[in-house]
Amino acid sequence: MQDNKINKKLSIIAFSGDFDKLTAVFTLASGAASVGYEVNLFFTFWGLNAIKREKKRAPVGKSILAKIFGFFMGGLRVAPVSRLNFCGISPTIFRYMMKKQNTPTPEDLLQASIALGVNFYACEMAMNVLGLDKNDLLPEVKEILGVASFLHLSENGQTLFI
Amino acid sequence: MQDNKINKKLSIIAFSGDFDKLTAVFTLASGAASVGYEVNLFFTFWGLNAIKREKKRAPVGKSILAKIFGFFMGGLRVAPVSRLNFCGISPTIFRYMMKKQNTPTPEDLLQASIALGVNFYACEMAMNVLGLDKNDLLPEVKEILGVASFLHLSENGQTLFI
Amino acid sequence: MQDNKINKKLSIIAFSGDFDKLTAVFTLASGAASVGYEVNLFFTFWGLNAIKREKKRAPVGKSILAKIFGFFMGGLRVAPVSRLNFCGISPTIFRYMMKKQNTPTPEDLLQASIALGVNFYACEMAMNVLGLDKNDLLPEVKEILGVASFLHLSENGQTLFI
Repeated sequence: MQDNKINKKLSIIAFSGDFDKLTAVFTLASGAASVGYEVNLFFTFWGLNAIKREKKRAPVGKSILAKIFGFFMGGLRVAPVSRLNFCGISPTIFRYMMKKQNTPTPEDLLQASIALGVNFYACEMAMNVLGLDKNDLLPEVKEILGVASFLHLSENGQTLFI
Repeated sequence: MQDNKINKKLSIIAFSGDFDKLTAVFTLASGAASVGYEVNLFFTFWGLNAIKREKKRAPVGKSILAKIFGFFMGGLRVAPVSRLNFCGISPTIFRYMMKKQNTPTPEDLLQASIALGVNFYACEMAMNVLGLDKNDLLPEVKEILGVASFLHLSENGQTLFI
Repeated sequence: MQDNKINKKLSIIAFSGDFDKLTAVFTLASGAASVGYEVNLFFTFWGLNAIKREKKRAPVGKSILAKIFGFFMGGLRVAPVSRLNFCGISPTIFRYMMKKQNTPTPEDLLQASIALGVNFYACEMAMNVLGLDKNDLLPEVKEILGVASFLHLSENGQTLFI
């Protein structure tokens, strides 16, 4: 019983903005949540890409550099594959294979994670460096946290850096 | 005593197919197993590359896309270095340095891991996406598992994502 | 109380030599140390780059290959960004944004980590492969360790691979 209490928690520092790694993040998150784990995702740096709110218009009131990053970080739908240079495998091929094999895409897994009660957090320092604020992120993001708060949240469980 | 029981376990989600990261996976696995740890390796995505059975003939009865991936994922011997673009350091140079310094190569470390009783698992979802089945993998692979089963196996220990 | 004892420890295997990932390593390390965590950093492969002592002269008495690596691995100040190929975002832009937002740079965070008592270790096997010895590293590096010793040190805490 204490055993269960200690371990039914999975926390992931989602650092990468790559399509394949974000797929891993949301596969682990939704898989763990579906069997009763408490799941905490802490998005930082490129990972913030995955939880950006999609915008119709260009961002207003941001510095030029923040706009450049806003452009680079175009959301989950345009995330590249981590080994893009490896013979040109593209997210498009992955998506095609996923559809063909009836495997959920990262967008499906993100929605499943939300539905299953996964907790979304964003890293305070990275938000500052990249010139983002809470309005730039999905409304499901619960809080902007520093490192110490996240480590405290993830105590007594398994923590991964992806 | 309970302390030992809680912690003498190392679980690794082996996601990367890069030569240097796979070297890290097998170094950690064999090092931990040699001092009595239970070690669980869960190969997924590019990491499946490391535990592919070497084939003489072209795969039969697979989709074209699975064949393309079968070609891309050519096994541990052809794994690229993660920072290949960084001045062209190649696995060949690494291997040469390893031999020269009497350091084991990834293939040596894989064999040592097997000999030391490291547990090999493969990720169900990735196998589906990439069109692989159990016959494509080394006979030492114990089971094809989903995320939930792997998280359960790795409870009460240290878990890494590489 | 036992709860605290079990978890107030963060250990990181610092494998990557990328600017952004090293920033993550030192942000986590200094953030955790500042709230009372025991922090252990285990530098291996490209990560050794971050704790190289800066040298005025060319290395003497090393093999040609070690010299080549010595050249490639030029220290924290020349670390590339992990997604350098992604529209050419450079460490220079990052540093500029960090300064502009009053966010500490990786060098600041390294110094903070040292001041806060973070423990620095280097990986024995990687030192051998890359032809480095303890004199090539910052004097703050406490010890050259093997995998088993590091895993033992990091028991009963959270362990990350970055």
